[in-house]
Amino acid sequence: MLTLFHHPMLASSRFVRLVFAEYGEDLNLIEEKPWARRKEFLALNPAGTLPVLLAENEQPVVGATVIAEFVDETRGALKRERRLFAEDVFERAEIRRLVSWFLDKTENEVTRHLVRERVFKPFMPGSAGGGAPDPAAIRAARANVRVHMRYLNYLAGTRDWLAGPKLTCADLAAAAALSVLDYLGETDFTEAPAAREWYSRLKSRPSFRTLLADRVRGLAPAASYADLDF
Amino acid sequence: MLTLFHHPMLASSRFVRLVFAEYGEDLNLIEEKPWARRKEFLALNPAGTLPVLLAENEQPVVGATVIAEFVDETRGALKRERRLFAEDVFERAEIRRLVSWFLDKTENEVTRHLVRERVFKPFMPGSAGGGAPDPAAIRAARANVRVHMRYLNYLAGTRDWLAGPKLTCADLAAAAALSVLDYLGETDFTEAPAAREWYSRLKSRPSFRTLLADRVRGLAPAASYADLDF
Repeated sequence: MLTLFHHPMLASSRFVRLVFAEYGEDLNLIEEKPWARRKEFLALNPAGTLPVLLAENEQPVVGATVIAEFVDETRGALKRERRLFAEDVFERAEIRRLVSWFLDKTENEVTRHLVRERVFKPFMPGSAGGGAPDPAAIRAARANVRVHMRYLNYLAGTRDWLAGPKLTCADLAAAAALSVLDYLGETDFTEAPAAREWYSRLKSRPSFRTLLADRVRGLAPAASYADLDF
Repeated sequence: MLTLFHHPMLASSRFVRLVFAEYGEDLNLIEEKPWARRKEFLALNPAGTLPVLLAENEQPVVGATVIAEFVDETRGALKRERRLFAEDVFERAEIRRLVSWFLDKTENEVTRHLVRERVFKPFMPGSAGGGAPDPAAIRAARANVRVHMRYLNYLAGTRDWLAGPKLTCADLAAAAALSVLDYLGETDFTEAPAAREWYSRLKSRPSFRTLLADRVRGLAPAASYADLDF
């Protein structure tokens, strides 16, 4: 079984767990505090970022999109209909664009700030930037949630799955980001019915089960978090 | 000839130009102001980010790493010894890790701030965040330059090329970032002799020529910018 260094409140880590779960492969999960900069962990990834996969022969594979490409090259290409990338080069480019949208753009404009202020800061030492949440940062991130929900709703309303006719890494990246926001009660589907229908399909997949069981110390999930009929 | 929407002071755009130049393929370059959010450009890439490649049949391929994967899939695999990715999956993961290091991490900690404060702000309208440079942002970015130079020097000093025994996208990503800093006179090789030797090799390649001819309105390059013997 391969090992994944992760944190349950990071969309990038959840994305990798979903990719492996879709392929029916269990992971040995090791939780890493993103702010800790633990020496043994920095030896695996000098950037200190998560997730890091310890693949065959304990070789580290660093970063969510790098791991997704690695999994496609070593496993996905053999999965035929269940492959999480497309065969066509332009469809692959579209999948990668959307993975980056939800793991980089949504992360930088929304998710990262809400998680930092609401989940990490209370546990971070002052020297690492811990302390009281910053209401202005939370407000700015919440304003951006709506923009990202609208784009998700547009994609879900015009395509079967986010990148086209079948489930791909694009769906898993978006669902990973959304599930973090969902845990925090920061989603609002009122004006995004197509996104709701799409997320409901994702949430019902067996691959999603371990994510729905995630619990973070000191912060209970929103009431509808594990509800498939939200 | 394919079209690339780019900006000469963005490392991500320079990286894509280097990739195509290494394969001997000219591009039709269209300069896009990164802050302009031009309507026709947003139709190609709703994120509004650069670079965007208009590939065969005018199909947009969005983002530097997505374009690099596209180029590898459509061209690189046929280039044998001159391929900019490796064949081995772990070597490919290492190349991707380093591309992300220099185009994401270096960008977010160093390059983006210096370019924004020193190059973009004077031309940006106030509504888009233009105005006088922020000395604190410049100071913070300059402090980070040293960390990134040290890592580059470590890589260049322990491997033939940054990701291993041959030239890959990792070298082009690092050189793209470094060349932007070099234009701004923000590099210092005093404590990075291996990085200097490596960058000198990169700078001498034919693929680098158009980059060295780049000029930005209102800001002349540092004296040593186009000097191969810096």
